[in-house]
Amino acid sequence: MKLRFKPYELHLKHRFSVSGCSRTFTPAVLTEIEHDGVVGYGEASMPPYLGETAGSVTDFLSKIDAGQFRDPFLMEDILGYVEGIAPGNKAAKASFDIALHDLTGKLAGMPCHRMLGLGKDKTPYTTYTIGMDSDEMLGLKVKEAGDRFSILKVKLGSADDKGIIRAIRKHTGLPLAVDVNQGWKCREEALDMIFWLKEQGVVSVEQPMPKDCPDDMAWLNERSPLPLYADESVQTAQDIPALRGVFGGVNIKLMKCGGMREALKMIHTARALGMRVMLGCMTETSCAVSAAAQLSPLADIADLDGNLLIAGDPFEGVKISGGRLMLNDMPGIGVVKYIETI
Amino acid sequence: MKLRFKPYELHLKHRFSVSGCSRTFTPAVLTEIEHDGVVGYGEASMPPYLGETAGSVTDFLSKIDAGQFRDPFLMEDILGYVEGIAPGNKAAKASFDIALHDLTGKLAGMPCHRMLGLGKDKTPYTTYTIGMDSDEMLGLKVKEAGDRFSILKVKLGSADDKGIIRAIRKHTGLPLAVDVNQGWKCREEALDMIFWLKEQGVVSVEQPMPKDCPDDMAWLNERSPLPLYADESVQTAQDIPALRGVFGGVNIKLMKCGGMREALKMIHTARALGMRVMLGCMTETSCAVSAAAQLSPLADIADLDGNLLIAGDPFEGVKISGGRLMLNDMPGIGVVKYIETI
Repeated sequence: MKLRFKPYELHLKHRFSVSGCSRTFTPAVLTEIEHDGVVGYGEASMPPYLGETAGSVTDFLSKIDAGQFRDPFLMEDILGYVEGIAPGNKAAKASFDIALHDLTGKLAGMPCHRMLGLGKDKTPYTTYTIGMDSDEMLGLKVKEAGDRFSILKVKLGSADDKGIIRAIRKHTGLPLAVDVNQGWKCREEALDMIFWLKEQGVVSVEQPMPKDCPDDMAWLNERSPLPLYADESVQTAQDIPALRGVFGGVNIKLMKCGGMREALKMIHTARALGMRVMLGCMTETSCAVSAAAQLSPLADIADLDGNLLIAGDPFEGVKISGGRLMLNDMPGIGVVKYIETI
Repeated sequence: MKLRFKPYELHLKHRFSVSGCSRTFTPAVLTEIEHDGVVGYGEASMPPYLGETAGSVTDFLSKIDAGQFRDPFLMEDILGYVEGIAPGNKAAKASFDIALHDLTGKLAGMPCHRMLGLGKDKTPYTTYTIGMDSDEMLGLKVKEAGDRFSILKVKLGSADDKGIIRAIRKHTGLPLAVDVNQGWKCREEALDMIFWLKEQGVVSVEQPMPKDCPDDMAWLNERSPLPLYADESVQTAQDIPALRGVFGGVNIKLMKCGGMREALKMIHTARALGMRVMLGCMTETSCAVSAAAQLSPLADIADLDGNLLIAGDPFEGVKISGGRLMLNDMPGIGVVKYIETI
């Protein structure tokens, strides 16, 4: 197997703001694994708050001796070797894992979801995220999204969360999922806010409080009338057992956990614990989003809109129809590459 | 898809005794799922202590409307439908799950282990079980096994467990795994016995105490110098989280959990909890044993010897070499059927 990779800058359609962070582009690294003339595509997306950079990803990928492997289907062994090179580096590992899944799917002539026994008709609805913005821009974004999506996601954790919800409610009656990104510090105020949000048609709340406050979260989870999803509190499958009773569900992202294989393990673990599953993403191309979408028939809800936020997506893959993810029948992760990137 | 099934009696080479049970044959039901002229094989094995019978299995299988499914690869949906027909009936469900995995592997032209990204060179050692017997018969069995296996399994829970170990130790110095089948009732005596067993070269202890004594088991698990595996205490993935701290590992069996798909979920769940994994079986043909063996590269140790205990195995599949499971490159679960059974 041959591994190739190259940094690639993802430019955003709109300035993107979450609690404590605002940006107009995101660094990425695109990967390719080639075997017997077949090429699998992968991607690492590195939002700055997760600590990986184009430099750290290319450094990590440089350490992978892909040439030693003659059978890409030995994924457990190959990905175990990659995991063992160094701890962390989850986005870098995900870029390799995705390319390997795409490659093996293409070699088998099957979509990844089919190899996993999943039906493309069982995909969930996906939320579309509306970043914090001026009232005018919020209205524009909501209108843009309202025709295509059945549920919108709103980033809270600002000085005036109620104002944001009210501004959005001027333009749409769609169900809302909110993502607080650890923005609330007081559990009693958080609970009051959740009850208020429920009255406003909010259906789920993501990471309401800081990840270092599991006791407050458990208190909140016991009382919340809405399901609470962990995001910053969960990275890999080993993190999930401690979250039972602390959150009602987990947001699983390839760039956090290291790829599709670990994401599947996380889904199985969460289900065994009776927890809900959301499949999320970073700001990324249709490559990584389509990879995550392969697993989406196992999720309750998706938040796989990262590719819709960027301009000049080099890939075409999973689509949205009626607010649901639409998988195609192409082998592997189901993407076509339009722009020569490597 | 077309489903066919037929009861089939498995005759044992030797009378088989465990704590509270002795028998010379085991009822089984063999299944076939056919699609596009390709046939997948499955099997339900029903040791009497688990409550299923040839009648209950054929009754359950009669309720499956397989004709409604035109794509065998939609395994999550199909097996979800089967699970929803009635609770329990895990051996019946396993017989369908195994046949479906064999069928899809054959349709894809790939062994199941390969579709799961597993390498056939990473299979574990398998134990070979020695039933309680006269001293003379024990010696005979141990000699028969000693040349082919690297670790033997001994059933304890009798009135004279030390006598059994001493009798076996006359004939072999191989490492021993013991299976107590809930046979010990006092935790202090159990702990003393485990320390004694460790001195005799025993390397693991399965289900030492009754499944309704988790507190005693946790006490024992904390103090045991040997890893303790749950068997009767665990059936499906949802049972595993409560076993952390109670056992060090779980014995996963297709006939207990309902098939290969649930077994994979159990392995992922156990690993997320930091627990060991044993893949076990009932007395069954090379069909169900080879199905379990497809997952074995993910296990620490296998106890997949059920096919070796029966006379007239209608299937040929996984082999043993140097004490390790040897997977082949045949598609699906990797079996050839020698005897017309359905």
